[in-house]
Amino acid sequence: MGVFEITVLGSSSATPAYNRNPSAQMINLNEHFYLVDCGEATQNQLNKFKIKSAKIDTIFISHLHGDHYLGLVGLLSTLHLNGRTKTMTIVGPPELKDIIDLQLKVSETQLRFPIDFRPTQVDYTEVIFQNNDVIVETIILNHRIPTTGFVFKEVARKRKINTEKLTEYDIPLEYIPLLKNGIDYCDKFGRTIANAELTFAPKAPRSYAYCSDTIYTEHFLDQIEGVDCLYHEATFLHELIDRAKETFHTTALQAGTIANKANVKQLMIGHFSARYKELDLLLAEAKTAFNNTVLAVEGERYTL
Amino acid sequence: MGVFEITVLGSSSATPAYNRNPSAQMINLNEHFYLVDCGEATQNQLNKFKIKSAKIDTIFISHLHGDHYLGLVGLLSTLHLNGRTKTMTIVGPPELKDIIDLQLKVSETQLRFPIDFRPTQVDYTEVIFQNNDVIVETIILNHRIPTTGFVFKEVARKRKINTEKLTEYDIPLEYIPLLKNGIDYCDKFGRTIANAELTFAPKAPRSYAYCSDTIYTEHFLDQIEGVDCLYHEATFLHELIDRAKETFHTTALQAGTIANKANVKQLMIGHFSARYKELDLLLAEAKTAFNNTVLAVEGERYTL
Repeated sequence: MGVFEITVLGSSSATPAYNRNPSAQMINLNEHFYLVDCGEATQNQLNKFKIKSAKIDTIFISHLHGDHYLGLVGLLSTLHLNGRTKTMTIVGPPELKDIIDLQLKVSETQLRFPIDFRPTQVDYTEVIFQNNDVIVETIILNHRIPTTGFVFKEVARKRKINTEKLTEYDIPLEYIPLLKNGIDYCDKFGRTIANAELTFAPKAPRSYAYCSDTIYTEHFLDQIEGVDCLYHEATFLHELIDRAKETFHTTALQAGTIANKANVKQLMIGHFSARYKELDLLLAEAKTAFNNTVLAVEGERYTL
Repeated sequence: MGVFEITVLGSSSATPAYNRNPSAQMINLNEHFYLVDCGEATQNQLNKFKIKSAKIDTIFISHLHGDHYLGLVGLLSTLHLNGRTKTMTIVGPPELKDIIDLQLKVSETQLRFPIDFRPTQVDYTEVIFQNNDVIVETIILNHRIPTTGFVFKEVARKRKINTEKLTEYDIPLEYIPLLKNGIDYCDKFGRTIANAELTFAPKAPRSYAYCSDTIYTEHFLDQIEGVDCLYHEATFLHELIDRAKETFHTTALQAGTIANKANVKQLMIGHFSARYKELDLLLAEAKTAFNNTVLAVEGERYTL
């Protein structure tokens, strides 16, 4: 089973504060790299943490508040200047394409690489991206402007062959692909040997849900049920619940509550308001509702 | 005579490199603050160097390559969130307004402060901004897309009264404003006392010219003749003169040549290519043509 790792590049809401940068995360799944949100100076964060931006093949933008995407055109421009030619897939609200197009037009830049733009919408959940490693579904969040989260679900691995049993039952090698797909074996005497006897179950596919920004809502609980790690914004302490509601954000206590109700394995909280220099109270508050909570810390890697 | 000081916030061309940020400079003239260019992460640089962004009242953008303006909307957004209400004057190419408007529209942001947008053009030099302290003229540069530099000319101070002479000639106080404006004094006997005898000349007004980005051109020499400090881009060493021509940039040697021909007092070079980790060769090369050259170093203050 390959690596499934999140590196936090930005954990601040709205503006940079206390050396915290606006939202961005890098997901490494089997050495394929997915950038989720791209606040201003994300390329500086990539440099700082020695992550090669050239490795990124897909970028997911949750919504068009500046703290979630203002670093995108700078990053694309740097990739262009560095000679990238392979396609970049960009997932985000439709107007993001207009912004990219306008900024490239005024700078008279013709990117050396194609962009495969995939517009999100907020009417219903959909599979917005998939490849051999991952299926990505949008999560409809409830924020001031159209916003989606994303669930990254590792593609289920095939069953593993029990080679001893293969020898014991004298099963020809050409049956291996079928066995890996869970098919029972029927021998030349018409006898059926159950697949479960011939193979081992693969490890359960891992999953990561990214929920930022949103007011407290339980409507996507089903979608994030049992994920290995849930990133959920926790902009405020619960004493500022009125401010959270007014700005369509979530408190640390509410993020913990969501994690608890969705039976996730781990909760990562982030998108911290600039009013908090220290984050320990936010962490402690989330933990009162869900103990296995960690802070999104820039430069830290979280392994699923 | 008040302060006239430049703080370099970014000295890198195209992309951030070796902890150098893209172009931005802060000019403090008599405690009024003017931002010149605003590359990505300029607001982080302001934080780093403990310069209050709230003090900025005017922003000048030379052109619409991303490394000169991608930090602007993030900065405006932060000022908005911090409660700014006073007008921000923004000087730049007309399409900059379209970009700002589009980005505010998609984020459904209504700024709390008005923007006084003043479009630049590249057909002829013009006074694009003035107040009691400064007159700012555009410089028509020659780059791949429409680009202007800016000359900041301190408004000439009035003459200073020689109080001893006022007593000696028994000159009434109400004449002082006239004397400060250089008018001669005519006493009750019809005798004229030359202004030069009654007043001291003020210090010469200071001037700063900002020239980025441009291919080598002498057509604006008259405009920058004798400035106290000339900032001129010096993207490459002269061994890459072909690359400089191709990309409409200048070499360090050429920047020194311009400074020499324009008889400026000091040359500051910047906009260094990401290929140069160390900058000493660029400095040495510029100095061969103009000895009083300094490097644009981020966080450094240059006093005129």
